[in-house]
Amino acid sequence: MPSASAEPRVSTVGAGTRLPDGISTQVRVPASSANLGPGFDCLGVALGIYDDLEVTATPGPSLVEVSGEGAGSVPTDDTHLVVRALRRGLSSAGVDADGLHLRCRNSIPHSRGLGSSAAAVVSGLAAASGLLDRAGHGRLSDEVLVQLAGEFEGHPDNAAASVLGSAVVTWTVAGDDGVTAYRARRLELHPDIVATAFVPDTESSTSFTRALLPDQVPRADAVFNLSRAALAVVALTSAPETLFDATADTLHQGYRSAAMPETAGLVEALRHRGRAATVSGAGPTVLLLGTEPVDAELEGLATDLGFVAHRVEIAHGVQIS
Amino acid sequence: MPSASAEPRVSTVGAGTRLPDGISTQVRVPASSANLGPGFDCLGVALGIYDDLEVTATPGPSLVEVSGEGAGSVPTDDTHLVVRALRRGLSSAGVDADGLHLRCRNSIPHSRGLGSSAAAVVSGLAAASGLLDRAGHGRLSDEVLVQLAGEFEGHPDNAAASVLGSAVVTWTVAGDDGVTAYRARRLELHPDIVATAFVPDTESSTSFTRALLPDQVPRADAVFNLSRAALAVVALTSAPETLFDATADTLHQGYRSAAMPETAGLVEALRHRGRAATVSGAGPTVLLLGTEPVDAELEGLATDLGFVAHRVEIAHGVQIS
Repeated sequence: MPSASAEPRVSTVGAGTRLPDGISTQVRVPASSANLGPGFDCLGVALGIYDDLEVTATPGPSLVEVSGEGAGSVPTDDTHLVVRALRRGLSSAGVDADGLHLRCRNSIPHSRGLGSSAAAVVSGLAAASGLLDRAGHGRLSDEVLVQLAGEFEGHPDNAAASVLGSAVVTWTVAGDDGVTAYRARRLELHPDIVATAFVPDTESSTSFTRALLPDQVPRADAVFNLSRAALAVVALTSAPETLFDATADTLHQGYRSAAMPETAGLVEALRHRGRAATVSGAGPTVLLLGTEPVDAELEGLATDLGFVAHRVEIAHGVQIS
Repeated sequence: MPSASAEPRVSTVGAGTRLPDGISTQVRVPASSANLGPGFDCLGVALGIYDDLEVTATPGPSLVEVSGEGAGSVPTDDTHLVVRALRRGLSSAGVDADGLHLRCRNSIPHSRGLGSSAAAVVSGLAAASGLLDRAGHGRLSDEVLVQLAGEFEGHPDNAAASVLGSAVVTWTVAGDDGVTAYRARRLELHPDIVATAFVPDTESSTSFTRALLPDQVPRADAVFNLSRAALAVVALTSAPETLFDATADTLHQGYRSAAMPETAGLVEALRHRGRAATVSGAGPTVLLLGTEPVDAELEGLATDLGFVAHRVEIAHGVQIS
């Protein structure tokens, strides 16, 4: 197994190497909540809702079986996002496969701001890592998984949370060669912090809501978010009593609120009660972090606005077996 | 002694209470470097350059004796910044004094981006705390010191570093009553981190350089700094190997570089060598953080640009005796 190096360089074991037919691997990948409060594109947390994936290398054409979320609405051949990520992971090590037989059991709801596409990408890359390991090539490092997933996603905060687990800080480095490096650090989350995801029936498109953000922002708003993003790391790791201040935002949630009035309303109602609520990713799910569980009054409030409250554990990173 | 409460409320022990003549206190306050890399107005570090202050309550008019930095150029009566801060600290506890005799021995250079004005304010407030304690009223809490100093300064990052020591994350909360709350958390700095201050002969005006910053900034720059400010907390506390990435900035240093070409040149030269250099405060001093000391080549580089390299310890917060 290659050691986890700081640089996400990938090794090549020789072009044209093929996976032996019949080897298989299993992957369990958590959901994630990104854009955490002030941390647009840079703070994410892994949540205990999981997609499970079983992959076997086959001689025939690829086949994707999907149950649960996405069943019937996603492609079942080599164009499937998980398959594309899987083949990218294999190719990063110079390995190819004939056919791939995937069984996906998905629990992460789609288009709800819970990182389902990042989880799909990470599950494919992690499956590649598992297959490579079974074939004697060793696993892909976490750094390579974050890098390749970031290239698929264009931002690393969801994917890094799914890879590393817990909460993550992510950042990008523009290389001289035009290649963006995606980097991440895992935070040791304070053990008292619990999470509740308020999930609505409605869906949201990240690309649509991202287009609502202006190109220029007030410097005062940027400075506000800077202080809160720095504080968020302190709050998540050692000072959960500051989570309310640490989850305030002026750079993204407000611009999107008109497109998701129920989400904005629930966030406001929770924050009015002093609770550290934020939009999860690009919405419409609302994430609540804190040291106290949600009581019946808050659950009722959420129900009235069309949300179901799910107590979710803070998850470990992707598991490969 | 009042306990350190989360809310910076100040107690009043009765209007018109006067300090007894002859009581005295001593204060040692460290310099600070604010606007640390991406952390404009929110990340600061306390540096081991000190102003010392000795105060005695007297029946006569106030008298300020200054030696070292600022001698001959600052007022020597009740308009002196330290005296004003001291009287504000006393009044926060409902206490007054007739005359105050101050002996200031200053080592923190003025107008260099090393937080001398914040240190002056903190020394006055801390002296008030010491005098109050001697008079049986108990000390002012750290929270009160940060709040009152923030009100003097308009931003809390220098002052909080001088109060709390080590590195700090600071933020503000706009109150419903129009009063801004200034808040701060101390970080446990990674023990391998050492600091070097490159101090030039030239002075800089914070109000002038602050006016160089635009009211609107590109959202992409704001997002860049968000990720790096969050990373800075990780770098300072547990991952000094990420300090280079964690000290990059797009929101303030570039706008001010034309006003301080030597400072910009030294930061660029150091960063070109992979070193985590930033402008200290509003400049013109350059702060270098890292796990390796400065070598002769870097010292020579700084000398050529008009800077003197000072290895400085990361300081404890203000001391009152």
